[in-house]
Amino acid sequence: MTGPGPAAGPPAGPAAGPPVGPAAPELIEAGFDLENADAPVLHHGMNLADLAHLLDLASAGVIPPDAARRLLALLLEVMQIPASEFPYDPANGEPYNSRERYFVSRVGDVAGWLHAGRPRREAVRVAFRLRLRGDLANLIEAAAALAAELAGRAREHATTLMADQTYLQHAQPSTFGHYVLSFAFPVLRGGRRLSEAMAWTDASPGGAGCVNGTRLRADRRNVAALLGFRSVAEHTRDAMWQVDGLFDMVGAAAGLVLEFDYVTLADGYSRASVLMPQKRNPYALSIIRGAAGTLTGRLAGLLAVAKTPSARSDNLIFAYGEVPRALDLALRTTRLTTGVVRTLEVNEARMRAALESGFSQATDLAEYVMQTCAIDYRSAYRVVGHAVRRASAAGLRGSDIDGALLDASAAEVIGRPLGLTGHDLTAALDPWQIVVSRTTLGGAAPDEVTRMAEEVLAQAREMAGEARRWRETYRAAEDALVAAARRGAAGHDPQIFAERSVV
Amino acid sequence: MTGPGPAAGPPAGPAAGPPVGPAAPELIEAGFDLENADAPVLHHGMNLADLAHLLDLASAGVIPPDAARRLLALLLEVMQIPASEFPYDPANGEPYNSRERYFVSRVGDVAGWLHAGRPRREAVRVAFRLRLRGDLANLIEAAAALAAELAGRAREHATTLMADQTYLQHAQPSTFGHYVLSFAFPVLRGGRRLSEAMAWTDASPGGAGCVNGTRLRADRRNVAALLGFRSVAEHTRDAMWQVDGLFDMVGAAAGLVLEFDYVTLADGYSRASVLMPQKRNPYALSIIRGAAGTLTGRLAGLLAVAKTPSARSDNLIFAYGEVPRALDLALRTTRLTTGVVRTLEVNEARMRAALESGFSQATDLAEYVMQTCAIDYRSAYRVVGHAVRRASAAGLRGSDIDGALLDASAAEVIGRPLGLTGHDLTAALDPWQIVVSRTTLGGAAPDEVTRMAEEVLAQAREMAGEARRWRETYRAAEDALVAAARRGAAGHDPQIFAERSVV
Amino acid sequence: MTGPGPAAGPPAGPAAGPPVGPAAPELIEAGFDLENADAPVLHHGMNLADLAHLLDLASAGVIPPDAARRLLALLLEVMQIPASEFPYDPANGEPYNSRERYFVSRVGDVAGWLHAGRPRREAVRVAFRLRLRGDLANLIEAAAALAAELAGRAREHATTLMADQTYLQHAQPSTFGHYVLSFAFPVLRGGRRLSEAMAWTDASPGGAGCVNGTRLRADRRNVAALLGFRSVAEHTRDAMWQVDGLFDMVGAAAGLVLEFDYVTLADGYSRASVLMPQKRNPYALSIIRGAAGTLTGRLAGLLAVAKTPSARSDNLIFAYGEVPRALDLALRTTRLTTGVVRTLEVNEARMRAALESGFSQATDLAEYVMQTCAIDYRSAYRVVGHAVRRASAAGLRGSDIDGALLDASAAEVIGRPLGLTGHDLTAALDPWQIVVSRTTLGGAAPDEVTRMAEEVLAQAREMAGEARRWRETYRAAEDALVAAARRGAAGHDPQIFAERSVV
Amino acid sequence: MTGPGPAAGPPAGPAAGPPVGPAAPELIEAGFDLENADAPVLHHGMNLADLAHLLDLASAGVIPPDAARRLLALLLEVMQIPASEFPYDPANGEPYNSRERYFVSRVGDVAGWLHAGRPRREAVRVAFRLRLRGDLANLIEAAAALAAELAGRAREHATTLMADQTYLQHAQPSTFGHYVLSFAFPVLRGGRRLSEAMAWTDASPGGAGCVNGTRLRADRRNVAALLGFRSVAEHTRDAMWQVDGLFDMVGAAAGLVLEFDYVTLADGYSRASVLMPQKRNPYALSIIRGAAGTLTGRLAGLLAVAKTPSARSDNLIFAYGEVPRALDLALRTTRLTTGVVRTLEVNEARMRAALESGFSQATDLAEYVMQTCAIDYRSAYRVVGHAVRRASAAGLRGSDIDGALLDASAAEVIGRPLGLTGHDLTAALDPWQIVVSRTTLGGAAPDEVTRMAEEVLAQAREMAGEARRWRETYRAAEDALVAAARRGAAGHDPQIFAERSVV
Repeated sequence: MTGPGPAAGPPAGPAAGPPVGPAAPELIEAGFDLENADAPVLHHGMNLADLAHLLDLASAGVIPPDAARRLLALLLEVMQIPASEFPYDPANGEPYNSRERYFVSRVGDVAGWLHAGRPRREAVRVAFRLRLRGDLANLIEAAAALAAELAGRAREHATTLMADQTYLQHAQPSTFGHYVLSFAFPVLRGGRRLSEAMAWTDASPGGAGCVNGTRLRADRRNVAALLGFRSVAEHTRDAMWQVDGLFDMVGAAAGLVLEFDYVTLADGYSRASVLMPQKRNPYALSIIRGAAGTLTGRLAGLLAVAKTPSARSDNLIFAYGEVPRALDLALRTTRLTTGVVRTLEVNEARMRAALESGFSQATDLAEYVMQTCAIDYRSAYRVVGHAVRRASAAGLRGSDIDGALLDASAAEVIGRPLGLTGHDLTAALDPWQIVVSRTTLGGAAPDEVTRMAEEVLAQAREMAGEARRWRETYRAAEDALVAAARRGAAGHDPQIFAERSVV
Repeated sequence: MTGPGPAAGPPAGPAAGPPVGPAAPELIEAGFDLENADAPVLHHGMNLADLAHLLDLASAGVIPPDAARRLLALLLEVMQIPASEFPYDPANGEPYNSRERYFVSRVGDVAGWLHAGRPRREAVRVAFRLRLRGDLANLIEAAAALAAELAGRAREHATTLMADQTYLQHAQPSTFGHYVLSFAFPVLRGGRRLSEAMAWTDASPGGAGCVNGTRLRADRRNVAALLGFRSVAEHTRDAMWQVDGLFDMVGAAAGLVLEFDYVTLADGYSRASVLMPQKRNPYALSIIRGAAGTLTGRLAGLLAVAKTPSARSDNLIFAYGEVPRALDLALRTTRLTTGVVRTLEVNEARMRAALESGFSQATDLAEYVMQTCAIDYRSAYRVVGHAVRRASAAGLRGSDIDGALLDASAAEVIGRPLGLTGHDLTAALDPWQIVVSRTTLGGAAPDEVTRMAEEVLAQAREMAGEARRWRETYRAAEDALVAAARRGAAGHDPQIFAERSVV
Repeated sequence: MTGPGPAAGPPAGPAAGPPVGPAAPELIEAGFDLENADAPVLHHGMNLADLAHLLDLASAGVIPPDAARRLLALLLEVMQIPASEFPYDPANGEPYNSRERYFVSRVGDVAGWLHAGRPRREAVRVAFRLRLRGDLANLIEAAAALAAELAGRAREHATTLMADQTYLQHAQPSTFGHYVLSFAFPVLRGGRRLSEAMAWTDASPGGAGCVNGTRLRADRRNVAALLGFRSVAEHTRDAMWQVDGLFDMVGAAAGLVLEFDYVTLADGYSRASVLMPQKRNPYALSIIRGAAGTLTGRLAGLLAVAKTPSARSDNLIFAYGEVPRALDLALRTTRLTTGVVRTLEVNEARMRAALESGFSQATDLAEYVMQTCAIDYRSAYRVVGHAVRRASAAGLRGSDIDGALLDASAAEVIGRPLGLTGHDLTAALDPWQIVVSRTTLGGAAPDEVTRMAEEVLAQAREMAGEARRWRETYRAAEDALVAAARRGAAGHDPQIFAERSVV
Repeated sequence: MTGPGPAAGPPAGPAAGPPVGPAAPELIEAGFDLENADAPVLHHGMNLADLAHLLDLASAGVIPPDAARRLLALLLEVMQIPASEFPYDPANGEPYNSRERYFVSRVGDVAGWLHAGRPRREAVRVAFRLRLRGDLANLIEAAAALAAELAGRAREHATTLMADQTYLQHAQPSTFGHYVLSFAFPVLRGGRRLSEAMAWTDASPGGAGCVNGTRLRADRRNVAALLGFRSVAEHTRDAMWQVDGLFDMVGAAAGLVLEFDYVTLADGYSRASVLMPQKRNPYALSIIRGAAGTLTGRLAGLLAVAKTPSARSDNLIFAYGEVPRALDLALRTTRLTTGVVRTLEVNEARMRAALESGFSQATDLAEYVMQTCAIDYRSAYRVVGHAVRRASAAGLRGSDIDGALLDASAAEVIGRPLGLTGHDLTAALDPWQIVVSRTTLGGAAPDEVTRMAEEVLAQAREMAGEARRWRETYRAAEDALVAAARRGAAGHDPQIFAERSVV
């Protein structure tokens, strides 16, 4: 082989061993800065994860009792420091490095016992799930509150007539109650999806080690119990790398965002223009719409980052901040929507006037013609369509159509009148009678709307209750963990410290 | 008010009544063409939806028996025409219009009865769900097959040593079985998500009407039962407009796509270069990766289209084709991945050689030092890290590290040797002993891998069985529907035709 | 090292050499099927690419004259076969393999000369760009037509009063001409972006080889000239892998899609409901909206697929079909929008009535108060806002506000009347006078709208002209290429065949 | 009309006039909180926008000189307050409201003059563009630096042999210089795209008013000149709502992110594992990959939010923070990549050893066989492919192939030997000779690589220079604006204050 370059010899493998020297400033700015901006998101969870890890190792006899006591005492102290005051500093690396450095500054080499049997990734994954399960409980409760609010307004307006629309046009007479209740169903389904994502989240990756488990822990259930996890994420490699539940929760959060039309916002949800004195801008709707689109992008970005071959790089680094922020945006938007629904002004007179000005009875009229005259629906439709066109051109409204007009149209469309002149068409033309006829399952009849609203309220109550129970479970587990740590730090609980195991 | 323009007078409202005249050519090209390209996707489902609608209306006495008989006979005939031969023509409008025109061409005004009490949207929504539930059953079955294949390979290779990686670097000794099994878990979870999406899909929107229900049907459960739907989508407005389950299924389908590294594809999954004679390109991996990204985009697009205020426009028009095509892409990719897994060549000698050439034992060695010498992990880590760096620079491998080298590193790093010279480090350096020590839940120990693999196989079998049972349920419902239609068309079943109800 | 497995020995490298045996059926279904579905997209371009490659190699003396002649004749024949009739068959592999197989079936080993010095990837990349540059020319022309149509309607309605809106509320008096013209500007900018993407596209990757160029071609400009490319994509590795221009063109295509409000569609762009006789659904707007969201997803998917480390896999396989289809969707939607604009009904009376019913003069009125009474704008705003609230509650309109009402409001808001009672407020309240006052650059004054409309028309004409000129250039190059191939096939042009170069 | 509800009467229109009462707490949390979090992004630009607006109105005589002087003095004071210390408070509304409240607290009603003739939206749109043009200048400069760094490393390694890859497999012999230079081209193109987006950004929306312009300003060029804008965004409605350039810049920023393979990071760009002592994780690559995916999502979200019918809601509210943050992420990532490239370790011996261990010469060898033996390429390919397969199975390398082996393969594949036994194949087998043969435009020959690298360096220098010049232009305009404001505040410049115009 010719050419410039080194003499061919046995190639050296890549250098092994940790890197030396400080991080490059560009790395600090692009990487560590970003991760430290997420430190407040994970701070509390990392404290808990460290406590549980320590107690677990101490009880297994891996850490000497004295070291364990000092570290427990130190961590209990750190629990009192808000994230904003803890010396997180990108110059140290990611937040975990700042913690390590702080611990060393306080207790010297003793701090080194904390790293036994656990990679940074495991600690952060645990903290991440602790954070997410709390966020999800809040979001589920907010979803339940929104569903309940929608059901409440529906019950209140089960008899408030309006013209429901398709394609921004009057479709059929309905009620505001039926309209507004339709939004409660996707909200309840969204809440259920979040509950499933919470079950995924509430599984402990503790003890997964780098990838294949660890030899230092006999039972991964111990650390899971200390942290109040519902279950253990089983396969250690999967426990380390799984991302699918994140897509679920961001997707469900995005799905929670509703968009309405036709509503008049209360003043507290509007905004004045500073230039135009007549304006009251429906600002809340802009926020809701913006949140919907933004969450769509968050989901696409998460998929693009995280759908990579596992082990290629750490595809969750960006997720630590992105996912809780997405859940937070959904939480705020859900609460905003609940407020909008609670206060929105239902102008019954205006809705009824709009209803009366249109032709939303046309379908019922055509069905009436079909049944009364025993002609097929298509023919009835054509007759009524012709009559509507005529009435519209003459400035009439739907309720002005009469049998004579229908007969005239029939004569033109199907070549013969239908004998409707003089018929009383009230049953087919009166919006109230039309609405009352929708008694079938899920229809707009007031009793059916009321029944569904009650059902939604019951489900929303149950959903909210469950979310609250989980939150209390988490809090109780946290209290128990801190109490155990206190006993350990005080040396009061000899059971915590097993004899050091012999290799 | 000054200025040009019409004299102010009472403003006319917008014209009402159906549009007249032919569709604009640009509309045909941009809209109807697109919808007709999706006609084959929905053709079979529309046939079934029409049959069930007819039987339902006939049994309710809405349609005269003669008309019902003629229409049933016609529809049974259409069932025999493949979509590609049915006269779908964008010039007529969307596929539903082509069907209507065909029916009229065959039976004249009688065809008009088919439209009673049902908007086009309802018919197509029903057909869409019939299509999707079948697609989902297939995809779930394919997911189960992939999980089973992964578990099978895992069981086979529970003792095949390899170095698992993080960040594309050797992390710890593991087995190929543990590695490959980790992919089975997200696949099973993906299958479960699809099952939930199938439950959402398998709910009948029949009888939802335009938006508020219909007066012509007493019980929406009848048409649901005729079509073999599991349940009725309750609130009629929600039933008409709900899209959330579509996000779930496309998201879950996207989540099914796995990407591997480190595998050697069998010839059947590779592709030759036409220029470079030495190449065997891992073409299957390109397809899998491309499918993953494409599905991410499909989900983003679906969200962008469908997350709009309901009733503003029909936000499902594009979904009719997009969603089944996305599921189909996921199905093909899942099957491809199953084939790749089934045939991939596991070069045990190469994996073992790679494992031996590196330093993946370093963590176990540091833990050994920690426990044997009773020093904290961080210190042990630093000693071993120093030794690894030295060994690496000297061209040695992990298994070449001995107590003397560790003592020399310790002297430099922590100021004193650790008395390790002469120790037998085999337990900490031998990859096999390391792997065997991972007996904790989910770890790499062969027995644990085998146990998990069996568990995955059992779950995959159950999942596949359930998917097959649903498919059989759907087929049975379809057969029963066709049989009922045949009886009706032949006039053999008087129960089908109720007396015409009186208005 | 202990444990099961093979004795450690020198590890074999991965096997080299092309794969043997047929493709797996799952690969055919997931991969080759997909690529063959795109064959019609690339068919014509592949024919041209092959012709140019052959002529280039022949003139360089790489291919023996006889072989070149036979292959040229064969390719000219293939030019006559539509893609749908060419034996593309996934069982053969991707479309290129079907072509090869067909060529071999026709001329035996002679077909093998076609592969000299060119990988499949280069051939397909060339064909892709030939396709895209034509698609882009069409789309630019359509964008120019849309801009011209918008400008034409603007010129026509430069004096048609309407209330422009922000936040769906009346903001200020304006004209329909000013409103509709505002959409022409993003369309022109979109057209310019497409022109830049076309310049990127219109660069020849010919002669890039696998990655580092080729030794068989002295000058890459020759093949570029034969295909009528504007330039050569310089760096061969970049030429092979560049994807950035694809993002540009799909992004620009997505950006072209406009959404309107407030317009009444002509009948040809609406759709009847089959159930509701009064409806004329603005179906065209659903298509436009759906296209916008779909294109957003196409772009996200393209980014997710193609933003991968180059050389890892072939990240353009999915793009071959996705990008031309995205451009086609944009083309159809752009033409549809042009039709909508051309025919939309402008109901002047209704717009004026709506304008008169509101308070869109409030800003001008507050400015009048500020200037006349020498009070700050915030105070004037508060006075007018108060007056508007009062007038609105009393059922009055903006034009009903008079000086007395303002003075009453001033007394309440700022503690003193402003002496406006009796003033003539016409200049501030008459929408026509307000509009006429907007003479500043870009404003709503009719002369300014007309001036801008003329300018847009001129630019649209220029843009359309340029697109047409490029298309003619491409066609001329193609004709010249075919003519040269004919001369070569007939043996009439000795210059085409150089002496075979000696190695 | 029957049914419950209000007696039908003339429906009231929606209430007009600004909303009263405080904002709802949910709106503050979901909306104003979010906008105030973006206040630091826009703070400086809002100061400048206010100054220019004041000077413009004052010179037009709209504001009384005294009021103008006091407001100028106040604004100059505010220029000294960092955003973090300015009393932005979500309880006041969005940042603009906090500013107004602060101004009123300082100068009472005089503050009200600031709102004359300008809606909040215009002020914020101006500030947004001022911010973006600066961000873009920085990002373009960073892109130029990255391109220059890539070109520098390319020049340095124009003769460093390596095997370039396709599909993760050795493709052809190349150089590290040619490889690394290929990334410079998309970076330069990305920089050019950003320049175009900067031209879009650098157009003044000043004087657009709410939507149709304003009557208070005679010439919109004045305020544009005061702010150093390159041009005026012409049509006032378009100027207010245009979003297309935002897609361009975020798309171009996303496109800037490069991903590499095959590189060894310097220590400063790696990260230690805290558990595994042998690891040096290529952390920088995780950040780069994560940024690429995140930016894809940002673009999708921006499209989903902003591609809505203009005027429906304010579709830029979320963009104010999202776009600058996306540009910032791209800036940090670009600088990180530059650092990675500058310091990456090129292990020439290892690359050459890898090159020699493979068969990347196979294509050149097949071309040699084709030309020497006058057989078609496909046949030559098959002969060489067979030889490679044999050599690979025998543990040989590409350079070990000789004429005898080729003849043996030829005998088997095409039925006869080719007379190559004994030939000197060095020219076809020696990677150096192969690389040197790639002299065609853009090829891997060292002189060509050096030529291109010089060209890239020149273009990068020019791009960086232009970005710097724009930044200086912006700074000079800002200085001049502040100086004019100082003169105005001090009353030294009578020209600033025109006589108040008479209505």
